[in-house]
Amino acid sequence: MRLAELQTPALVVDPAALEHNLATMATALPGDRCRPHVKAHKTTALAARQSVAGHAGFTCATIAEVEGMAAAGLDHDLLLANEVVDARRLGAVVERGARVTLAVDSDTTVDAAAAGGVREVVVDVNVGLPRCGCAPAEAGALAERARSIGLSVRGVMGYEGHLMTVTSSEERATRTRDAMAALLAAHAEVGGDLVSGGGTGTWDLNHWVTEVQAGSYVLMDTAYAQLGLPFRQALFIEATVISVNRAGGWAVADCGLKALGMDHGNPSIEGAAVWYCSDEHLTFSADPLPSVGQRVRVIPAHVDPTVAYHAWMHLLNPDGSGVAESWRVDLRGW
Amino acid sequence: MRLAELQTPALVVDPAALEHNLATMATALPGDRCRPHVKAHKTTALAARQSVAGHAGFTCATIAEVEGMAAAGLDHDLLLANEVVDARRLGAVVERGARVTLAVDSDTTVDAAAAGGVREVVVDVNVGLPRCGCAPAEAGALAERARSIGLSVRGVMGYEGHLMTVTSSEERATRTRDAMAALLAAHAEVGGDLVSGGGTGTWDLNHWVTEVQAGSYVLMDTAYAQLGLPFRQALFIEATVISVNRAGGWAVADCGLKALGMDHGNPSIEGAAVWYCSDEHLTFSADPLPSVGQRVRVIPAHVDPTVAYHAWMHLLNPDGSGVAESWRVDLRGW
Repeated sequence: MRLAELQTPALVVDPAALEHNLATMATALPGDRCRPHVKAHKTTALAARQSVAGHAGFTCATIAEVEGMAAAGLDHDLLLANEVVDARRLGAVVERGARVTLAVDSDTTVDAAAAGGVREVVVDVNVGLPRCGCAPAEAGALAERARSIGLSVRGVMGYEGHLMTVTSSEERATRTRDAMAALLAAHAEVGGDLVSGGGTGTWDLNHWVTEVQAGSYVLMDTAYAQLGLPFRQALFIEATVISVNRAGGWAVADCGLKALGMDHGNPSIEGAAVWYCSDEHLTFSADPLPSVGQRVRVIPAHVDPTVAYHAWMHLLNPDGSGVAESWRVDLRGW
Repeated sequence: MRLAELQTPALVVDPAALEHNLATMATALPGDRCRPHVKAHKTTALAARQSVAGHAGFTCATIAEVEGMAAAGLDHDLLLANEVVDARRLGAVVERGARVTLAVDSDTTVDAAAAGGVREVVVDVNVGLPRCGCAPAEAGALAERARSIGLSVRGVMGYEGHLMTVTSSEERATRTRDAMAALLAAHAEVGGDLVSGGGTGTWDLNHWVTEVQAGSYVLMDTAYAQLGLPFRQALFIEATVISVNRAGGWAVADCGLKALGMDHGNPSIEGAAVWYCSDEHLTFSADPLPSVGQRVRVIPAHVDPTVAYHAWMHLLNPDGSGVAESWRVDLRGW
């Protein structure tokens, strides 16, 4: 399909940037050193590319992501890096032959894992982000409880999410070291092979985990772009200019709040100033202003909640003139 | 289904609040005086309730919304209150027997309407919001161009979206009057029966339009709740507490950025303080803290982009203990 025929707004992926990102990660953190987080793209076709690049294990954030990855045959080693209080759907995935490991951080979630038919867990340890994870000092007791009811404990995980976008890489490194000291102390009590953590913001700073749960690196967004990482912007939203107000000095593209995760603020357009977004509109100024019908390329501020709005993601062909492959964003929902 | 069995996060609708909102609107602006905007809920089953309440015409924001409404048989009078540069899919809907009227604000969009097989248009007039709409002085010429190429011009529309959340109702009224003066001036040049505009924020202040394009009134959100409107919060997100940190004083629910439109800021939980949201998490404090497994009810800050993340919306039964009907959010995408 020619790009001009693509219904907008539409997620499009630059193939050169994608390949660069895949190769950069696979070279620096080959194989099991990176456990790509599928929440960033929610697309099994893209996960398959990460698998081809050498990463056989994946990180998931929802039960639906685990189910979808297993259904796509990418079920070698799926870690649900999140707590659930009803694990029966995960037990059913295990029953069908997938390897599923579940994060636990409380007696209730340990018991839910066993009751639901999950066989392997990691103890989720809080390393400073006010979110999930038990206190490091409680990790050993949780592991013991898990083992006592027949679960296999593969190790620990701890996500230093509060450090991902600390602008100074020096400060990011120091604080990551401190956070990981807490995780390693917990690991000493828990045992097991896995020390899982990290993300795109600390991918080259976190030397303490056995595997990095990076997700955003493969598509990127403007928030992570500020950190000077070696990954390139691979995801854009193709939009059409539907209205131009020359007297007022603005144009309107058909890419609004329902096509964009907005928690990191407005998206960007190269060479333009984004004024604001409404449900189905993006108002911007540029010099010169575009014409009605012209295409513009919007760069999302936060990749994960942007992708989750779209049913499809389109890989462009090398010269960008058309769509090479259309991938279903098949891991949406819960 | 019992509410406890519902997979979270999930959109749930309070039936009493819904009925109250439907009845309040149908009493104040009966029949064609209100043309409900489906972009707020994207659900034909809910549009059917609005139709039963007496509103036979609907406002849409996307081609997919028009197609879905027509497929559901709610095709009596569909207004796409937005510009498109390729109207062929709309022409196909007209061909199948639906009445579709399209907004136009430029020569290009007038020509696209005719080329795509749309037969009826309204001239979209800019009334102060930096978005779509021609200048009031250009409306007459656009109508002439449209008629000259065989289109029927039903009138004008103009959306005072910049006034919807002006907190003072007096200021909202004054500025709406001024905005509508511009729309009526354009209407004098354009002719036709329709003067379409307004929204939930000006539903009782805009006395100049022939029909109000209100959408949010039926489900509501915390942004509109601040205006003291007579509509009640009918939409909530049912979420499950998956982690509690008693030492830190916070709990985590499974309702994050992919379940919530965030452009109006954080959602609310009654009796709790919301700290922040991440992809699949909402961290909050409350006294007392809940327990893991307990349910909480989250109130979105902005209804439209919240609904667009969900595949289903569940109408509760009168006592709130279970799900009476599950409605597909079938108007998503483009």
